[in-house]
Amino acid sequence: MRIVLAQINSHIGNFEANLNKILESMQQARSEGADLIVFPELATCGYPPRDFLEFKDFIHKSREVLERVRLESAGLAVLIGSPAPNPAAQGKDLHNAAFFIHDGKILHQHNKSLLPTYDIFDEYRYFEPSYEFKVFEFKGYRIALTICEDLWNLGNANPLYTVCPLDLMMDQDPDLIFNISASPFAYDHAAERIEVVRANVLKYGKPLFYCNTVGAQTDVVFDGGSLVFSADGRLVDELPYFEEVLQAYEVEKTSGKLEVRRSGDQPKPPAGEQAKEKYSLIHDALLLGIRDYFGKLGFKSAILGLSGGIDSALTATLAVRALGRENVNGLMMPSRFSSKESVEDAVALAKNLGIRYEIIEIEPMYSKFLEQLSPILAGKPFNVTEENIQARIRGTLLMAASNKEGHILLNTTNKSEMSVGYGTLYGDLCGGLSVLGDVYKTEVYQLVNYINKEREVIPRNSILKPPSAELRPGQKDTDSLPAYEQLDPILYHYIEKRLGPDEIISMGYEPVLVRKILRMVNINEFKREQTAPVIRVSPKAFGMGRRMPIVGKYLG
Amino acid sequence: MRIVLAQINSHIGNFEANLNKILESMQQARSEGADLIVFPELATCGYPPRDFLEFKDFIHKSREVLERVRLESAGLAVLIGSPAPNPAAQGKDLHNAAFFIHDGKILHQHNKSLLPTYDIFDEYRYFEPSYEFKVFEFKGYRIALTICEDLWNLGNANPLYTVCPLDLMMDQDPDLIFNISASPFAYDHAAERIEVVRANVLKYGKPLFYCNTVGAQTDVVFDGGSLVFSADGRLVDELPYFEEVLQAYEVEKTSGKLEVRRSGDQPKPPAGEQAKEKYSLIHDALLLGIRDYFGKLGFKSAILGLSGGIDSALTATLAVRALGRENVNGLMMPSRFSSKESVEDAVALAKNLGIRYEIIEIEPMYSKFLEQLSPILAGKPFNVTEENIQARIRGTLLMAASNKEGHILLNTTNKSEMSVGYGTLYGDLCGGLSVLGDVYKTEVYQLVNYINKEREVIPRNSILKPPSAELRPGQKDTDSLPAYEQLDPILYHYIEKRLGPDEIISMGYEPVLVRKILRMVNINEFKREQTAPVIRVSPKAFGMGRRMPIVGKYLG
Repeated sequence: MRIVLAQINSHIGNFEANLNKILESMQQARSEGADLIVFPELATCGYPPRDFLEFKDFIHKSREVLERVRLESAGLAVLIGSPAPNPAAQGKDLHNAAFFIHDGKILHQHNKSLLPTYDIFDEYRYFEPSYEFKVFEFKGYRIALTICEDLWNLGNANPLYTVCPLDLMMDQDPDLIFNISASPFAYDHAAERIEVVRANVLKYGKPLFYCNTVGAQTDVVFDGGSLVFSADGRLVDELPYFEEVLQAYEVEKTSGKLEVRRSGDQPKPPAGEQAKEKYSLIHDALLLGIRDYFGKLGFKSAILGLSGGIDSALTATLAVRALGRENVNGLMMPSRFSSKESVEDAVALAKNLGIRYEIIEIEPMYSKFLEQLSPILAGKPFNVTEENIQARIRGTLLMAASNKEGHILLNTTNKSEMSVGYGTLYGDLCGGLSVLGDVYKTEVYQLVNYINKEREVIPRNSILKPPSAELRPGQKDTDSLPAYEQLDPILYHYIEKRLGPDEIISMGYEPVLVRKILRMVNINEFKREQTAPVIRVSPKAFGMGRRMPIVGKYLG
Repeated sequence: MRIVLAQINSHIGNFEANLNKILESMQQARSEGADLIVFPELATCGYPPRDFLEFKDFIHKSREVLERVRLESAGLAVLIGSPAPNPAAQGKDLHNAAFFIHDGKILHQHNKSLLPTYDIFDEYRYFEPSYEFKVFEFKGYRIALTICEDLWNLGNANPLYTVCPLDLMMDQDPDLIFNISASPFAYDHAAERIEVVRANVLKYGKPLFYCNTVGAQTDVVFDGGSLVFSADGRLVDELPYFEEVLQAYEVEKTSGKLEVRRSGDQPKPPAGEQAKEKYSLIHDALLLGIRDYFGKLGFKSAILGLSGGIDSALTATLAVRALGRENVNGLMMPSRFSSKESVEDAVALAKNLGIRYEIIEIEPMYSKFLEQLSPILAGKPFNVTEENIQARIRGTLLMAASNKEGHILLNTTNKSEMSVGYGTLYGDLCGGLSVLGDVYKTEVYQLVNYINKEREVIPRNSILKPPSAELRPGQKDTDSLPAYEQLDPILYHYIEKRLGPDEIISMGYEPVLVRKILRMVNINEFKREQTAPVIRVSPKAFGMGRRMPIVGKYLG
């Protein structure tokens, strides 16, 4: 039996594009002589469809894609994820389903049992869990089908769930295990995912085909990396990360044993797992995040402010790699407080990258604002108000260029700044997409090192100089914030690890500093409420995966 | 037995304030000779605590409040909601619990069964449902305790759930039913809530005490309106809406029958249900929403832009009623496109309201922006870019005044505009709180009528003139949008009713118009992602209760 894994990038709600992609993949699989093609979870409508699932029309359109697939399934079996109505009177309206289709017939429907409802996931908001577990047969092979999270309660060890679907299918004696997924990227998740899939294989002693989705949907990046394991736990193949790919495999029964291998003459060299180096993964995830945000919204070009600092330099570099240098535009907007070097560093970067740039002084607007605001500002000392005016003039300039020329403005704020609210709402927090909002400042430096490894793309000067917002004379980030080497670990324990103040202090951090930082995180929730979606690369990003009440007074 | 319902306003995570409020309520109940005081759902920590629940420290602090209540419970029984760890190895970490405490002991813990996970609710993200149903006894009365949603599956008719808690408690022969709630306001919900509670009473034939929370937590308003029913379904009492109140009741067994009445000499006149007039409710909900957002964040004063239009006039009026006129500041920011009447109307309003105001011309900044942006704008026709620059100058002015003087900026955008993206991000969409973001334009007029019923607070001229953003010569809203009378019903069917295009068209609406409007709603998700929290007054508000993927292409 020849099986093709179709690691595709569906677009939420873009039924026509998804259908075409599915049909083309089927066409290619057929031309390669495949018996079965496997698509990811909810491939008809894209994942996560969120509240679109509450529209009957949306479910109907997903079903229409399925119907078209059914009509094209002569001689090629298809396994594909799609939402399906729950026929029972009790329970949520929908199932998160997988359909097995062949020769014009839907032969089997399997509904997901374990519904992730944490972090970015809201599946229990829409779907009823299923407790029916039926193995089905194709070409003499008995197949146990699972959907994503269904594999993640091995041995009932995951306290979130009370059943382990594969346990309940083993008495039906399956030959093969399939899993279709929409498993999102985080820098530590691909390695974890392989171990979980392998543990399933080792427990049940069956070959396993794991087909993950790929592509970014707003903030969430799905990394692909689909997996094939042989019955003895050997990794037969690991598909590329962050790209669409179709790959065929052979399954053969030889003397009662099941053999699984890549199709074709040149089997992949001894399957070593791909390197999972953190900054290489983050780099690639951010490129896909940028590319898909633009592509799926129908935009081609970006604009961003270039301050001469490291965050905007890194963002510009990533944008160039994702969109092409002809599609990236830089704007330098010096003020009376900007150093000469800032513009020089920004220009050096723009030239290194080969992007178009403009320099617009903000002083004329700034002095007019101060003049017109004199009834309110006069006689009061310079403070954050005047700093914010400068940042907001820049936001207005960037948005004007973006509006006039049809770009999306990229936000350059990093996760350390986002966490403690070091940024101006409607100013430097402007933008349609936050590229570095899930990358701490200390990680920004690591990413820049990774990028500069081969040649100096990002100017040394932007890396070496102390970070500054340049909104008052001689300002440094460390005037308002602890050094990032101190700040970031505390933020990590609070945000990613969800530890409270006492727990963090007990790890040896300075109590006053810990309480100050946690307070800053909590009282700045109102800013994060109004910022752009953040490309998620860590296990806990700002956005849908972290839901905090703005008026909450906890630690605030 | 004397029972006090404590309809209190807890503040999420403000444990000290909540504890003080609870202890003071207990003190008052004790002074009135109460045997039992009843507090709302999660009264120790406030509802909804959202991801704070993932912090062990937060749960610990909630428990500390409970412990203090326990120590103060000599001679006064307390029924109170608080999160509690789930001791089982399987399932989510927490229960949404209610504790019955008396004479220094926790005598009973009841865990919520039906966990709402839709709209603004995420309870299954945190809590494990409970399937234990034990009636407990106090002073010879057997009490069946339920928590909020537990009452909402009467006769198993709600397809979301598979159990009906009270059904499962009736064989334990309770005398009284208690429900502690955090049931949010929507203009149609209070009436619905009374009917659901009454239906429970009629089915089981027991008196029912329903204690709801009151107060706004960021975007969600809880309206109170706690209820007491006698066994025969008579509404004994309905507590006031939108305010904190303690009220005592007497329960007596007379010749085998249970009598329930308000304590005190003057029982309330024959309990008629309070009027549930839509605009009166919305009005009061918005006042509470404003007041609590400011109070819970520790702010006193507001600023807003006064354009001379009806939306800003209404917002200013509501702000004055919520915060006091000494705490509301208006800013008029005419441009070269503003009519003379606009400033006159705005000044008339400010004088009617007695609020402080300033007039700041935006022309000096606007012309400098055009000048400095000439490399980008020159030779291209005037379009939305130049309109947005004006709106963003205004946003910057408002934020500057807000920063310098310590106000919160109120956003004045209505739901019709929010829906179709008729507003400038970082411009008129600025603000810490959206007052009218859940009020359609046609409802804005109704609210204004309601307010102007007694005297003309909002100038007639602001009501009568055709809506305009005044961002280009002679501009009217109807240049870009259908008339609001056409627009709003279609938006309502799409947003509140979640009907698809075909369903709406089949109701008789014009197909091209329907498709155009639905498309506008969907492609403007990116703007709503970055706007302020919206005070929720309808059954489907923008914000946490409506979760859409920005890159989604559905109908877009």
